[in-house]
Amino acid sequence: APMPDLVETFPNPAPQRDYLIRHTTEEFTSVCPKTGQPDFATIDLDYVPDELCVELKSLKLYYQSYRNQGIYYEGVVNKMLDDLAGATKPRYMRVTGRFNLRGGFGSVVSVEIGDRPSFVALP
Amino acid sequence: APMPDLVETFPNPAPQRDYLIRHTTEEFTSVCPKTGQPDFATIDLDYVPDELCVELKSLKLYYQSYRNQGIYYEGVVNKMLDDLAGATKPRYMRVTGRFNLRGGFGSVVSVEIGDRPSFVALP
Amino acid sequence: APMPDLVETFPNPAPQRDYLIRHTTEEFTSVCPKTGQPDFATIDLDYVPDELCVELKSLKLYYQSYRNQGIYYEGVVNKMLDDLAGATKPRYMRVTGRFNLRGGFGSVVSVEIGDRPSFVALP
Amino acid sequence: APMPDLVETFPNPAPQRDYLIRHTTEEFTSVCPKTGQPDFATIDLDYVPDELCVELKSLKLYYQSYRNQGIYYEGVVNKMLDDLAGATKPRYMRVTGRFNLRGGFGSVVSVEIGDRPSFVALP
Amino acid sequence: APMPDLVETFPNPAPQRDYLIRHTTEEFTSVCPKTGQPDFATIDLDYVPDELCVELKSLKLYYQSYRNQGIYYEGVVNKMLDDLAGATKPRYMRVTGRFNLRGGFGSVVSVEIGDRPSFVALP
Amino acid sequence: APMPDLVETFPNPAPQRDYLIRHTTEEFTSVCPKTGQPDFATIDLDYVPDELCVELKSLKLYYQSYRNQGIYYEGVVNKMLDDLAGATKPRYMRVTGRFNLRGGFGSVVSVEIGDRPSFVALP
Amino acid sequence: APMPDLVETFPNPAPQRDYLIRHTTEEFTSVCPKTGQPDFATIDLDYVPDELCVELKSLKLYYQSYRNQGIYYEGVVNKMLDDLAGATKPRYMRVTGRFNLRGGFGSVVSVEIGDRPSFVALP
Amino acid sequence: APMPDLVETFPNPAPQRDYLIRHTTEEFTSVCPKTGQPDFATIDLDYVPDELCVELKSLKLYYQSYRNQGIYYEGVVNKMLDDLAGATKPRYMRVTGRFNLRGGFGSVVSVEIGDRPSFVALP
Amino acid sequence: APMPDLVETFPNPAPQRDYLIRHTTEEFTSVCPKTGQPDFATIDLDYVPDELCVELKSLKLYYQSYRNQGIYYEGVVNKMLDDLAGATKPRYMRVTGRFNLRGGFGSVVSVEIGDRPSFVALP
Amino acid sequence: APMPDLVETFPNPAPQRDYLIRHTTEEFTSVCPKTGQPDFATIDLDYVPDELCVELKSLKLYYQSYRNQGIYYEGVVNKMLDDLAGATKPRYMRVTGRFNLRGGFGSVVSVEIGDRPSFVALP
Repeated sequence: APMPDLVETFPNPAPQRDYLIRHTTEEFTSVCPKTGQPDFATIDLDYVPDELCVELKSLKLYYQSYRNQGIYYEGVVNKMLDDLAGATKPRYMRVTGRFNLRGGFGSVVSVEIGDRPSFVALP
Repeated sequence: APMPDLVETFPNPAPQRDYLIRHTTEEFTSVCPKTGQPDFATIDLDYVPDELCVELKSLKLYYQSYRNQGIYYEGVVNKMLDDLAGATKPRYMRVTGRFNLRGGFGSVVSVEIGDRPSFVALP
Repeated sequence: APMPDLVETFPNPAPQRDYLIRHTTEEFTSVCPKTGQPDFATIDLDYVPDELCVELKSLKLYYQSYRNQGIYYEGVVNKMLDDLAGATKPRYMRVTGRFNLRGGFGSVVSVEIGDRPSFVALP
Repeated sequence: APMPDLVETFPNPAPQRDYLIRHTTEEFTSVCPKTGQPDFATIDLDYVPDELCVELKSLKLYYQSYRNQGIYYEGVVNKMLDDLAGATKPRYMRVTGRFNLRGGFGSVVSVEIGDRPSFVALP
Repeated sequence: APMPDLVETFPNPAPQRDYLIRHTTEEFTSVCPKTGQPDFATIDLDYVPDELCVELKSLKLYYQSYRNQGIYYEGVVNKMLDDLAGATKPRYMRVTGRFNLRGGFGSVVSVEIGDRPSFVALP
Repeated sequence: APMPDLVETFPNPAPQRDYLIRHTTEEFTSVCPKTGQPDFATIDLDYVPDELCVELKSLKLYYQSYRNQGIYYEGVVNKMLDDLAGATKPRYMRVTGRFNLRGGFGSVVSVEIGDRPSFVALP
Repeated sequence: APMPDLVETFPNPAPQRDYLIRHTTEEFTSVCPKTGQPDFATIDLDYVPDELCVELKSLKLYYQSYRNQGIYYEGVVNKMLDDLAGATKPRYMRVTGRFNLRGGFGSVVSVEIGDRPSFVALP
Repeated sequence: APMPDLVETFPNPAPQRDYLIRHTTEEFTSVCPKTGQPDFATIDLDYVPDELCVELKSLKLYYQSYRNQGIYYEGVVNKMLDDLAGATKPRYMRVTGRFNLRGGFGSVVSVEIGDRPSFVALP
Repeated sequence: APMPDLVETFPNPAPQRDYLIRHTTEEFTSVCPKTGQPDFATIDLDYVPDELCVELKSLKLYYQSYRNQGIYYEGVVNKMLDDLAGATKPRYMRVTGRFNLRGGFGSVVSVEIGDRPSFVALP
Repeated sequence: APMPDLVETFPNPAPQRDYLIRHTTEEFTSVCPKTGQPDFATIDLDYVPDELCVELKSLKLYYQSYRNQGIYYEGVVNKMLDDLAGATKPRYMRVTGRFNLRGGFGSVVSVEIGDRPSFVALP
């Protein structure tokens, strides 16, 4: 099951600035709670750090904790935002899931917290 | 004929947030009322849920109810918006149909209701 | 010669809404008045209908009336806007011509009337 | 149901030569006999005519006769080859179906009759 | 109507070698004899010159002579080959027409004369 | 662990012909036996059926049985070929795995049995 | 050397409107004043005409006058803007040079005068 | 180690204007301080010069001074901004690093100083 | 004028093997002898060295010697082959020019000497 | 300097078959011996193993041993083939280097040993 405790942080090396960090992976997989079949998605994490940055290797392990978890699209994205924002208290954060075709439909769910700065493009 | 009763909903798991959900399919087909020939389109549904989300499998079945229906481009898109907004009472919703070439012309029709939030890109 | 009388209309099925209609064709051709050589272009028509929509087949025939007409790029696009806006009295309309390479130069001319709504992307 | 009688022909205007004709459409749809859900495919028809060519409008109508037919991928492609080769007695013919993703899998089925000439590329 | 007399030639500057010349244009247009509507195509001319090469400007004018001519796809390509091979007596020549979508179908017709050398790729 | 018993078959509807069937998925995942980290790949299965075809849904379930299995690239592809050829006794079969970047390296492993017919393109 | 006198103009056929004209060429070349080696660039000219438009053939000849001129990137783009704005007194004008890779670096320089209208996209 | 003294400047030839200069390279490499493995990135430098421009060859040498330096993504981008803005005192400057996939994750870090002018697109 | 004396060579470091060397540039320009207008092309040089390899910097200078030379497409490619093969006596060599659109036509001319080895792809 | 001793191997798990293994990286860098500037390339390694396979992590380290080595393109590719074939004694092996643009020229060098099997595509 999703394990927010896996998320590690390190101090923001430039807290005097608002700036953009984006981590993208095409290798997210979870399980559909209805059918038991695997889901696959690309996940984009965009954020403006305050005092803490997300450590990349731990982010990978955190995402892997969804691997055998039954969870809906909306659940994945909202829970990620809660967990990652909880761990890093960012000035701004957005999680966007782009889920592979199922039954001919592709889906995108995008959730953000904080005021989106002018330098962050739309998902 | 289009059957809005096919649309099912489920409770928005994160009603405390305004966020974006997009469902896209390249597999929409209806029939031209003038020529009787099939039309094909990609349909993008973008919305910000209030209390209800659209259930994806039911959305697919609802779109399939146009399969043998004679209806113009503008009719498809406006009726979808009426039906889907009627079923889910969203904070914002947009339906965009991108219709395949006919006589060398491709057509896009895009309809929205509600105030488009800043996080929704142009169609 | 360009024949605006070819343009036919039908009543806007959803006049209660401002919404976008786009018709695009890669098959426009006219003749350069200077060299007598054919010109080729992609034409994008974007508009927000008021009471009338452009009938697609008649739009095609109207564009074909330029086939053997000698006319400059700027003339094509401005005349189309005058003719199509004259026939449909839209809330907003834009015509964009993207002309094929001549002498190593590609050209775009884009003309609009009315206030461009926020949901219309740049040409 | 598939209606081979819809296929019309016209005399090959250049029977003295072996040459390639290809007709491609991205707008094929039939129904999965197991789930009752629509299938979508791109169909490529490649052939070397002998005395008869396939009339394009009738080919379109013939493909449309699969629209509400329950039939497997392999069935679609093999039956098309039988029907179209039966109607035109070509020197060579190949039908290739490229079926949209289902459950994350895309499928291609390609069937040919006659000796493939050196000027026909692989599917 | 197609005017083969427009085709001009110049002496092959390297007749001692077999080599490839390809001229491609995306700006071919003729008229469908059945509907009276314009057709559009990309035309590829590939040849191995013997004593004569095709002069490029004259090739353009020759193609333009189809502009208002009613003629089928197969007719376009076979007639071009006859006319261009007649004018230049090449060691090898191929004409390939790639016609724009009509009714959702794209078509390719490719005709050649002479033995295709090993250095000529498939159309 | 990989479960070949999941593979189901159905009778080839056209055993009188040699023809190509290709099933492709971008959603394969297994686990690296060395690092315990997930691997991701696109898997192409190409075959010429003899008496039996692979049932697509069962193929999906069979691939899913690798989801939590520790196995090397070469092992994945060779075992798949053994299992799938064992289940269907094809005239020809090839399995190609295209593995995602690891440490900046992408890898392809492609294995085949039987004589590759002329109508099968290279991997 | 750059010859602004080559630039010819013609009267704006629609001075009652603000509208966009763009001319793009991938065939610009000049010489690096430091190394003596040729530079290559794509040049985009975007402008809103007032009373005069740039004649396209003369624009080509004007650009060719840089062919053997030693000049830096910033010099090319600023001088073009000065010369072209001087010749046409536009309501708005922008020149963007996109210079080919040198030492592994690609460079873009973009200069504008006048207030950029809302219908002009970013370079 | 990064050597800001390598950065050379030349006088802005058009200080009377605010305008955009962008230098992009796909050939940046440094070393991960944790694993000792090389990192690779594309670096975009966007700026509006005041009195000084960055000399391109010296920029290349400055980037090369990271080649064997152990440094994190955030460190690379923030240090580059500090060094390059220190050397040129620009009206606006942004450095964007797009780092290659590591463990299936691509990362972007983008830092800016000064008010971003309306003519600078998002990273 | 083209200056074959600019071509320098160095000893093939692996004469015991037949292997492929390809040098490609998108930055070739010469002048049309008929119109005096510049021509632009991509040039591909493929060869199998015998005792000598082409020095890359000198190849660049040799190509630049065409910059202000009036010469036809066929002349460019045949002369390059004569000059480069003369300087290096290769086991196999091919020169392919891909000339930019003129009057809507793109042209390719490809010339080779020696037996093309099986490891050299078509132009 | 290049360190062939870094290359590790493991036993081919399927020596009874001839099959293809390809490892590709876009992250190769060495140093030009003439200018001292870094070179960048994509390296494709294709081989048919006999008794030994190349261990991927060690391949990465071996490539990294060129990082600060002065060496020409032809030297890189030929030495890699010698070292990797020496370590694994493959049935067939090919190394292809695709070097980034220098002075506007991109270069490919491709070397192979052993008879190329029919299932290996051209570089």
